[in-house]
Amino acid sequence: MISIILVNPKYPGNVGSIARVMKNFDFYDLRIVGNKEIIESDEAKMMSMHAKDILENAKFYNSFDDAIKDLDFVIATSGARGGDRNLKRVPITPKELAKKIYSTKGNIGIVFGREDDGLRNEEIDKCDLLVSIPTSPKYPIMNLSHAVAVILYELYSYKVENKFVDINIREASKEDKELLIRKFNEFIDKSKLPEHKKELCKIIFKRLVNRAFITGKEAWTLMSAFK
Amino acid sequence: MISIILVNPKYPGNVGSIARVMKNFDFYDLRIVGNKEIIESDEAKMMSMHAKDILENAKFYNSFDDAIKDLDFVIATSGARGGDRNLKRVPITPKELAKKIYSTKGNIGIVFGREDDGLRNEEIDKCDLLVSIPTSPKYPIMNLSHAVAVILYELYSYKVENKFVDINIREASKEDKELLIRKFNEFIDKSKLPEHKKELCKIIFKRLVNRAFITGKEAWTLMSAFK
Repeated sequence: MISIILVNPKYPGNVGSIARVMKNFDFYDLRIVGNKEIIESDEAKMMSMHAKDILENAKFYNSFDDAIKDLDFVIATSGARGGDRNLKRVPITPKELAKKIYSTKGNIGIVFGREDDGLRNEEIDKCDLLVSIPTSPKYPIMNLSHAVAVILYELYSYKVENKFVDINIREASKEDKELLIRKFNEFIDKSKLPEHKKELCKIIFKRLVNRAFITGKEAWTLMSAFK
Repeated sequence: MISIILVNPKYPGNVGSIARVMKNFDFYDLRIVGNKEIIESDEAKMMSMHAKDILENAKFYNSFDDAIKDLDFVIATSGARGGDRNLKRVPITPKELAKKIYSTKGNIGIVFGREDDGLRNEEIDKCDLLVSIPTSPKYPIMNLSHAVAVILYELYSYKVENKFVDINIREASKEDKELLIRKFNEFIDKSKLPEHKKELCKIIFKRLVNRAFITGKEAWTLMSAFK
């Protein structure tokens, strides 16, 4: 299942239209970090139109950590593309996400940040993958519900185009991936690289593993290389 | 140039957020069949955020015919609305539109209908092409500004993918990726792994790199780990 997680949304109208667009594209699990009041206003209900059930079934959480706790794979979204320079945050596009997401098993969450300043770095760091919608450099900041619409549209389109064939690959478990990353990190620590390069290599390898949707068998085989 | 044409929009908030998403995706010519009052409300201005210029420069028309008169190629959009669907036309998807639109010469318009019942059949008949966003049969009717967002996103994405516009991220070149893979292979060859495991590790790492959409800078940093 794919859950949609909103972190501290401010405007009830946005939450209502997000519920609507979720139903337009066959998504049903809405999670909100924040207060239940946001869905109780008339505006939220009005904007949700025939998706009031999604609003009513929304789950509320006190913290970001709580909201993602039971998920196996968490995708952060961000507005302004970091660019090649910011190595900590190189995003993939919604189209790339669509190609990958359906071969991932387990519970998946897609996280959208605050209307005014998006997700915090420490929140993005807790996610496995970062997605960014390509936008004009002249005005890159999208309306929150539009960003949700674009991502969900892309995922739904991919299903329609590919007649949703289930790819029979088991993605590596969180534990397998963490073990592979740990083995790589130990290998790096034993190298003669300068400290800052070591850190960079670790970050990049971790991202690589998360972005590539590595399978369990692949992870285990690769671990042997770093022993 | 590609113009966006709204036919008798009812809600100022929609028009404001359409102006915003136009700017997000580098579209600037907004045409409205209807009364100028719709952009004069606070709600329209508020929702447009930093795209007030697009609202202010919007052109107004008394009729659909007037609004498309000077255009060379007009594209109608329609939701999946069941019974009243014009059977004469089979709609194409936004992705198919993106492939076609940039090879079309002259002034192009994309027309979006009313919030409640879309475009009329006689309006669709005056257009050259019909586009429809794939949506869930359970709830196919999208919010108007979401529909605009999806179509413009798809057109902008196509430009980015085909390098009509420059985005900041450079995927690693074939050469960079091959070099990284070669460095990894040399590293593996020096290891004490049994031969068949060596081969397997090489294959998996190569697959990982190709699947992960690695950037040039990432590839180069990671190479240093295998030297």
